[in-house]
Amino acid sequence: MSTAAAYAVSGPDGPFEKVTIERRDLGPHDVSIDVKYAGICHSDIHTARNEWGGAKYPCVPGHEIAGIVAAVGSAVTRHGVGDRVGVGCMVDSCGRCAPCLDGNEQYCERGAVMTYNTAVDETVQAGGVTLGGYSTQIVVTENFVLAIPEGIGLDVAAPLLCAGITTYSPLRHWNAGPGKQVAIIGMGGLGHVGVRIAAALGAEVTVLSQSLRKREDGLRFGASGYYATADRQTFKDLRNRFDLIINTVSADLPLDNYLKLLKVDGTLVALGLPENPASIRPYLLASYRRSLSGSMIGGIAETQEMLNFCAKHGIGAEIELISADEIDAAYDRVVASDVQYRFVIDAGTI
Amino acid sequence: MSTAAAYAVSGPDGPFEKVTIERRDLGPHDVSIDVKYAGICHSDIHTARNEWGGAKYPCVPGHEIAGIVAAVGSAVTRHGVGDRVGVGCMVDSCGRCAPCLDGNEQYCERGAVMTYNTAVDETVQAGGVTLGGYSTQIVVTENFVLAIPEGIGLDVAAPLLCAGITTYSPLRHWNAGPGKQVAIIGMGGLGHVGVRIAAALGAEVTVLSQSLRKREDGLRFGASGYYATADRQTFKDLRNRFDLIINTVSADLPLDNYLKLLKVDGTLVALGLPENPASIRPYLLASYRRSLSGSMIGGIAETQEMLNFCAKHGIGAEIELISADEIDAAYDRVVASDVQYRFVIDAGTI
Repeated sequence: MSTAAAYAVSGPDGPFEKVTIERRDLGPHDVSIDVKYAGICHSDIHTARNEWGGAKYPCVPGHEIAGIVAAVGSAVTRHGVGDRVGVGCMVDSCGRCAPCLDGNEQYCERGAVMTYNTAVDETVQAGGVTLGGYSTQIVVTENFVLAIPEGIGLDVAAPLLCAGITTYSPLRHWNAGPGKQVAIIGMGGLGHVGVRIAAALGAEVTVLSQSLRKREDGLRFGASGYYATADRQTFKDLRNRFDLIINTVSADLPLDNYLKLLKVDGTLVALGLPENPASIRPYLLASYRRSLSGSMIGGIAETQEMLNFCAKHGIGAEIELISADEIDAAYDRVVASDVQYRFVIDAGTI
Repeated sequence: MSTAAAYAVSGPDGPFEKVTIERRDLGPHDVSIDVKYAGICHSDIHTARNEWGGAKYPCVPGHEIAGIVAAVGSAVTRHGVGDRVGVGCMVDSCGRCAPCLDGNEQYCERGAVMTYNTAVDETVQAGGVTLGGYSTQIVVTENFVLAIPEGIGLDVAAPLLCAGITTYSPLRHWNAGPGKQVAIIGMGGLGHVGVRIAAALGAEVTVLSQSLRKREDGLRFGASGYYATADRQTFKDLRNRFDLIINTVSADLPLDNYLKLLKVDGTLVALGLPENPASIRPYLLASYRRSLSGSMIGGIAETQEMLNFCAKHGIGAEIELISADEIDAAYDRVVASDVQYRFVIDAGTI
């Protein structure tokens, strides 16, 4: 065992406090990482505040992790000391089920081991629950450690490990590219990266945001259209327009209005997970052979592909760097949509 | 103008009565068909009884039409007098929009002209509303007339024009075939044909029906599994089993239970159009990248492909032949699910 500093909440009402945690000794396939940056994802907030239920305290969130390899186990071949690496939402999976064998570890039939708040054996993590990236160190099996290419800063790369792959994966799966009309609903942490990736993939990108407040940013990120969803005219003007709509918003949206914006064979992909069931009119699907789909992060090989793609195209997140004692305030600002576009914790302040 | 006999309702409460209607004179591209058989589709009932709203009376339903060409216009090249032909749910479309040019006339952006109950110019149909196949004759533009191959009886072919294409199209679109696990919800008019087509396509087919009452038939039609949805164990046993589920039922089903039966990347296609909005938990889509989709009949070229496929594989509907004066009673029996599996009107009795 080795110790690390971390920021944890001991209950749903917080606050975050500095604690000392233990990380396991290096197994032959393990990589020990000095965390440099950890992004704040809305999922962190849902979990820390127990809004999804099932939170296990003390809770150390963080699944957008960028750092430097400090040590490697005896059998590690993929990473070496000093390498720039990242860890995303998963730190392990069964590796034997059909989804794992297909490279879809996120859909592991036995359940992937998430980076925090997953029950595990005490030999994996003392305390029996995974602890995430709001920490100075983390130990992860090598297959779930990603290489962060040169040419992309570790600070702006960190959010790609969740926000990046969560948008890249459905954009690729549903063939966003030249000739395709793609809309991104919401231009927050996920959305602003999604716009950049979709544009870099060659698609024609439209942002559907509540207001036009962030329009200049949207166009700078590569969108060619930017519409306010508070304006009812938007839904008339864009009828039957899109091949693919990526919904990055967790709030309960009137999905029927968005389904009508899809062409024949178009797909609306929900990435956010609203608390309430979604209600849709089946006729809107049948009348144009539309689909309502969902997607959850992406596989490990695909995450590496995404990082390589982003480095090649100069895509990082737009971030506000904070110190660890600002996490509570940052959470409140994320909930109020008051961040452009992702908070990243400087792990040097933990 | 020429006259034809037909069975019509003059209001939502029926009953069907024999009337005389007019059919237009043959235009250069028109085909005049002596109707031999007309299937009774549940849509006919919804429309005749104004359950979907918008019914235009007098109403002559019928969009599963099989007959013999009686005359052709001067420019017709695709059909000749004496040919065995069929007409399905559509009799025209704009022919110029993207869906029409893609062979998806059913998704015509200007709205396809449906075989009955669509407002049209008086020159197309006297009275300004299309009148369907419960009639001795019908005049249809040649591109919307299908050839019924030899080797398949006109009586059992008639229901293929709606029930056949409505199941064939999504089975093909979502790649039902060897190695694929396909479930069909409901074994009524659509479902029983869907089972046969899916099995002939090489998929492994499971029927999900309320009870096991029609199990023997299901296995005879080509299913390898048959489960009762009234039995809660079914939903445990079949979890994550299917690549594709085709829902032929119009009733409000608990879709979440069925979504859980899909594998990663599986699709649940709704063909029925329930009156109420569908409610689903978005998590069930995201957690396995599942899709909820819809589909509506199929294109004209695809309908011909379906007829050829069915002829090759010896697939017809299982029918109960009735005379025209039995339509009202047949409607009541369809609503009570008391038909195995499709009523077909012998047009010789009109």
